[in-house]
Amino acid sequence: MKNTFGDNLSITLFGESHGAAIGAVLDGVAPGIPVDKAFIESQLSLRRPQGKISTPRRETDSFKILSGVLNGFTCGTPICIVIENSDFKSEDYNALKDLPRPSHADFTARQKYHGFENSAGGGHFSGRITAALVAASAIIIPALNKKGIYIGTHIKKALNIKDRDFSDYYTDISFLSDKYFAVLDTSSEEKMESCIIDAAKAGDSIGGTLETAVIGMPEGVGEPWFDTVEGKLSHALFSIPAIKAVEFGAGFLFSDMHGSTANDEFIVADGKIQTKTNNNGGILGGITSGMPIIFRCAVKPTPTITKPQNTVNMKTLDETQMIAAGRHDPFIAHRARIVIDSITALTVADLLISRFGTDWLA
Amino acid sequence: MKNTFGDNLSITLFGESHGAAIGAVLDGVAPGIPVDKAFIESQLSLRRPQGKISTPRRETDSFKILSGVLNGFTCGTPICIVIENSDFKSEDYNALKDLPRPSHADFTARQKYHGFENSAGGGHFSGRITAALVAASAIIIPALNKKGIYIGTHIKKALNIKDRDFSDYYTDISFLSDKYFAVLDTSSEEKMESCIIDAAKAGDSIGGTLETAVIGMPEGVGEPWFDTVEGKLSHALFSIPAIKAVEFGAGFLFSDMHGSTANDEFIVADGKIQTKTNNNGGILGGITSGMPIIFRCAVKPTPTITKPQNTVNMKTLDETQMIAAGRHDPFIAHRARIVIDSITALTVADLLISRFGTDWLA
Amino acid sequence: MKNTFGDNLSITLFGESHGAAIGAVLDGVAPGIPVDKAFIESQLSLRRPQGKISTPRRETDSFKILSGVLNGFTCGTPICIVIENSDFKSEDYNALKDLPRPSHADFTARQKYHGFENSAGGGHFSGRITAALVAASAIIIPALNKKGIYIGTHIKKALNIKDRDFSDYYTDISFLSDKYFAVLDTSSEEKMESCIIDAAKAGDSIGGTLETAVIGMPEGVGEPWFDTVEGKLSHALFSIPAIKAVEFGAGFLFSDMHGSTANDEFIVADGKIQTKTNNNGGILGGITSGMPIIFRCAVKPTPTITKPQNTVNMKTLDETQMIAAGRHDPFIAHRARIVIDSITALTVADLLISRFGTDWLA
Amino acid sequence: MKNTFGDNLSITLFGESHGAAIGAVLDGVAPGIPVDKAFIESQLSLRRPQGKISTPRRETDSFKILSGVLNGFTCGTPICIVIENSDFKSEDYNALKDLPRPSHADFTARQKYHGFENSAGGGHFSGRITAALVAASAIIIPALNKKGIYIGTHIKKALNIKDRDFSDYYTDISFLSDKYFAVLDTSSEEKMESCIIDAAKAGDSIGGTLETAVIGMPEGVGEPWFDTVEGKLSHALFSIPAIKAVEFGAGFLFSDMHGSTANDEFIVADGKIQTKTNNNGGILGGITSGMPIIFRCAVKPTPTITKPQNTVNMKTLDETQMIAAGRHDPFIAHRARIVIDSITALTVADLLISRFGTDWLA
Repeated sequence: MKNTFGDNLSITLFGESHGAAIGAVLDGVAPGIPVDKAFIESQLSLRRPQGKISTPRRETDSFKILSGVLNGFTCGTPICIVIENSDFKSEDYNALKDLPRPSHADFTARQKYHGFENSAGGGHFSGRITAALVAASAIIIPALNKKGIYIGTHIKKALNIKDRDFSDYYTDISFLSDKYFAVLDTSSEEKMESCIIDAAKAGDSIGGTLETAVIGMPEGVGEPWFDTVEGKLSHALFSIPAIKAVEFGAGFLFSDMHGSTANDEFIVADGKIQTKTNNNGGILGGITSGMPIIFRCAVKPTPTITKPQNTVNMKTLDETQMIAAGRHDPFIAHRARIVIDSITALTVADLLISRFGTDWLA
Repeated sequence: MKNTFGDNLSITLFGESHGAAIGAVLDGVAPGIPVDKAFIESQLSLRRPQGKISTPRRETDSFKILSGVLNGFTCGTPICIVIENSDFKSEDYNALKDLPRPSHADFTARQKYHGFENSAGGGHFSGRITAALVAASAIIIPALNKKGIYIGTHIKKALNIKDRDFSDYYTDISFLSDKYFAVLDTSSEEKMESCIIDAAKAGDSIGGTLETAVIGMPEGVGEPWFDTVEGKLSHALFSIPAIKAVEFGAGFLFSDMHGSTANDEFIVADGKIQTKTNNNGGILGGITSGMPIIFRCAVKPTPTITKPQNTVNMKTLDETQMIAAGRHDPFIAHRARIVIDSITALTVADLLISRFGTDWLA
Repeated sequence: MKNTFGDNLSITLFGESHGAAIGAVLDGVAPGIPVDKAFIESQLSLRRPQGKISTPRRETDSFKILSGVLNGFTCGTPICIVIENSDFKSEDYNALKDLPRPSHADFTARQKYHGFENSAGGGHFSGRITAALVAASAIIIPALNKKGIYIGTHIKKALNIKDRDFSDYYTDISFLSDKYFAVLDTSSEEKMESCIIDAAKAGDSIGGTLETAVIGMPEGVGEPWFDTVEGKLSHALFSIPAIKAVEFGAGFLFSDMHGSTANDEFIVADGKIQTKTNNNGGILGGITSGMPIIFRCAVKPTPTITKPQNTVNMKTLDETQMIAAGRHDPFIAHRARIVIDSITALTVADLLISRFGTDWLA
Repeated sequence: MKNTFGDNLSITLFGESHGAAIGAVLDGVAPGIPVDKAFIESQLSLRRPQGKISTPRRETDSFKILSGVLNGFTCGTPICIVIENSDFKSEDYNALKDLPRPSHADFTARQKYHGFENSAGGGHFSGRITAALVAASAIIIPALNKKGIYIGTHIKKALNIKDRDFSDYYTDISFLSDKYFAVLDTSSEEKMESCIIDAAKAGDSIGGTLETAVIGMPEGVGEPWFDTVEGKLSHALFSIPAIKAVEFGAGFLFSDMHGSTANDEFIVADGKIQTKTNNNGGILGGITSGMPIIFRCAVKPTPTITKPQNTVNMKTLDETQMIAAGRHDPFIAHRARIVIDSITALTVADLLISRFGTDWLA
């Protein structure tokens, strides 16, 4: 089904970075969910490059809802959201059309689309496509919140600088919700930013790790085979350009553990069964346990750098050096985190609707 | 679609550890693929507990092919493989029915199935279900090999002991193919095993990391949104009980890197475009680049240990201590690796068939 | 997804007429539904050839439930039902292997499977495969009944002999439920049977029309595009070998009507909105209206006849005459009707679960 | 997946009759297919009301392609086509908001969407949504033609007036391709039109039957269970508002036939295996036989008539009389036929791509 994801709540993405528009169709939304355009706009602004550490491109991201919403409420029918592209000059890219940028999708796009791809600015592979996903998700997030489900992501690590762990989930998620550079410990923020600015000065970029928490999920959601919560989430998350790793709970640290340390013992707390630790990240056997869902994603350094790099002309097979043109974000994780929140919201909503029926979210 | 995975080549799993049988239906297989029962049996034996570091349970795993194969060749119709369960006494488990084992799926199964689950021995969540998956995949693996595609997985790490990296992929994959304890550096093997035996003696278990390589994949396979190669593979891999993390290429190491180090520069080698490094693990923009696909999975320590652990009676909500009954593998990664090979084979075959048509594999 | 049907309740069919076994995997069934083996057996017996107008083949249809059921209740996990094949001699068919029987799938199977198909007795195309579907559905039907939803099918027409229309739906459906030759007007039964016997004597067969009613369906189930109730049902129904036409409500009679006659005017009856007539067969805009769902299927005459027919050797391209070997049912609609009930039950259950959640049926 | 159809070539529809826009996302299209905007426009004009027998509403149907097409060729990425709505005044409908029009979807939409639906002009249920489907399909039809596959539909019957049967398929399909009122026998055209005008004068409408032929389909396409060619086509066709019956080949006439008459005997013609008759409509066992695919759809009379009809106020439950406002086409089948061609093109293209791979159509 390619550019569509989700079983009972599905999203279809379309558009190219330098085409007429990008957009999303969101289907399976219950009727009667209030649509808050200001919230959509604020979510889009968190994804949009801002401030000193980002690309100069002015994306206005003014979105139009073409269908599925009437008088401020969802109708129950598919919601198409479109964001027109305005600020681009695709001719800039033509010179470089046959020179694939290292670690970008230019080369694999050529293999798949045989030269017919609209490759300027990354085309359909551009991170810009995620704007449509963020806008669509901003209809779902408040509905999840009303059900007591909250999602938050912070920059756990940038190069060698770490943020503190989540402590009080609800407070931390609230704190993160409207921050552009989402770290929990503000002293980390400065260190990360100076590190990013150093990289930018050197024409370089840096990677990072994002950590996400989902709280308030009902127990018993997900499937043992194959639609585990981990499987569904990772399937969606790996769509985000630059995400190359996903771990749940203790993740790769499990490799260093004994079972006696790793196991989450059961206790009774607040009158219900919980676990003392949460190394399994809220998921046992693919199914939610009621504990917070915790996962981390690695974000590779933005491939676009201004240092010269080797590449090969795809037509002539000549090796050459290039300086990647186009947008240059020395860091991308702070903007990717809102995309992770968004894709997580859609995925858990899909799991919940599959379990409890189409009107559950309304 | 729950217990079914794959778009054009799909597998459906059924069965419980202590039910009548487990099995798989494999659909979308081209007609005319030779079915080598000895190879199926040898793959099953690599998954089955053997030797000094495994559980005493005698699983015979004698499989029956009920459909879809005639005179040693696939018919093109669904292949149902069934493995009967013989060696179990489900009454052993009844005493513990309401005491969820830490880090097992007992608790979440109860939330989802309300007490109707066949929970003995892990039920439908048992690693035993993967035997059916391994058997089904053993029909596909030789067909992939014939097309020049090879898959191999080794134990990269067990606790703090590391195996060497892949060096010559083809040689290493061949070397691993029939090893029960799949490490590349045999000196690591002894260290790992003594480490496992120590844990076993203490009634404990240890985790590990598995690393997989897929070579020979054609370029241009996969989708930008949402059916990326990473997304499809991770979706399937997280079904394997105990897998809690998946990383591609440099994975979480990307967090520590600058773009100038992380980027894979293009070169010409063997007359075609390749990359100097392979930090992206053979996948760019979700699509195969022709370089080896490389990923690592974290395997959590077997939750079943004989040390006493806290748990809660699900009926009375009383906290209590338990010693988990049932199988006790102090290590599981060496057996999980054949499951990873199997699920990888099915997933890449599905991607290839989606791209090149239903008869491509024949 | 080929041999799998259904979104949230799915069935996967496997097996060949003269293979080791046929079977089905039913997934998405709520836990806690009682499984009545006697009812499964009685449904299977209605599908099995009986009495004077059917083939002599003795199918025992003894089924085994391999998974997903414990202590007489569904577990919530996939249910695999297997029916072994016993009474066949596949060598009978080898002589005719290259001579496609007219109106059978032999020729198209060869085109699709290139000669690797297990074609004896129709192979995977055999009506026998529907036994597995009937057995699986027999787990769902009582659960639907408990929710007030009842399904019944009668032989509306055989050649030029007609049965009466449904009058009191509930009474008629109850009357039909355990009849082997399901007609509402018993005087039609004799006429139809004598007509069938005449055809049989002449080595011939006859077609028929089946009419189905589903009562008690909640309103508001189904989708405008593309998962209309008509679309989902017809998709499933056309899988039944021999079904070549499906019409809802007035169906093809609409072609002869004016809007003023065809339209179903709204009235209030029993305190709720209903329609005076039901030309739309309980479905408006693809969605249930709460009126009975009514549809008719055309069943083509059994292709297997003992009159000589022209065919072509698929290897030599020589034209020749053949007499179709194998089973010879001069009429099939009376047995197909239980398959229609079954496939309808699965389809409406899937629609209901999609709407109201996974536990709705329990 | 609700408003999405297709496995490897998929279409997602969105929009409401009186919303901002309607549109479609077409995904899975091979790169490099030429996009002929003039052909899209001409297909749209065949769907648009014209001439003396249609509604006065002026739909301009000017479409925009937002993505997936560059320099006149498909890119391989999702194609979003949008048609803005211009000529409507939704306030006209508000007075009637709670009075469901007989045989329209107003009542069932209310049950499903609880009053949040955008119901004006039929909303998401409007035949107008098919314009997006026709536009999307107009990208696929020329690609099918290039492969030798042609699709044509004629008005087989309107009330009691019949068109002649297909005779030379290729010639007849060519003849029909640009006709607004698609009949093969021009003398039928006048009779049908006068019949329609009579109905219109009486404030009434009439139904009809459409017959479709698909020629040039390769053999061996389709699945035995459940994705039969009949099943896939009917699933899609029943989405078209007003379609209430679908029959393949001899269809309901099979009920009146003996096997000896119904069976299609094999012969050799033009050096290949064909059938003497084509009662099975080009499909055996759900799979294409290479003979023309033939099916007929019943189109119910347009529900909108100006005669007064009974209805019930959905809020007060009061019975009342209404005269349906809005568009009034006394006949709809002549416009529906281009939608049938379109949906058939998408469905057969999906089947072909599933069989032969993603690039097959390019």
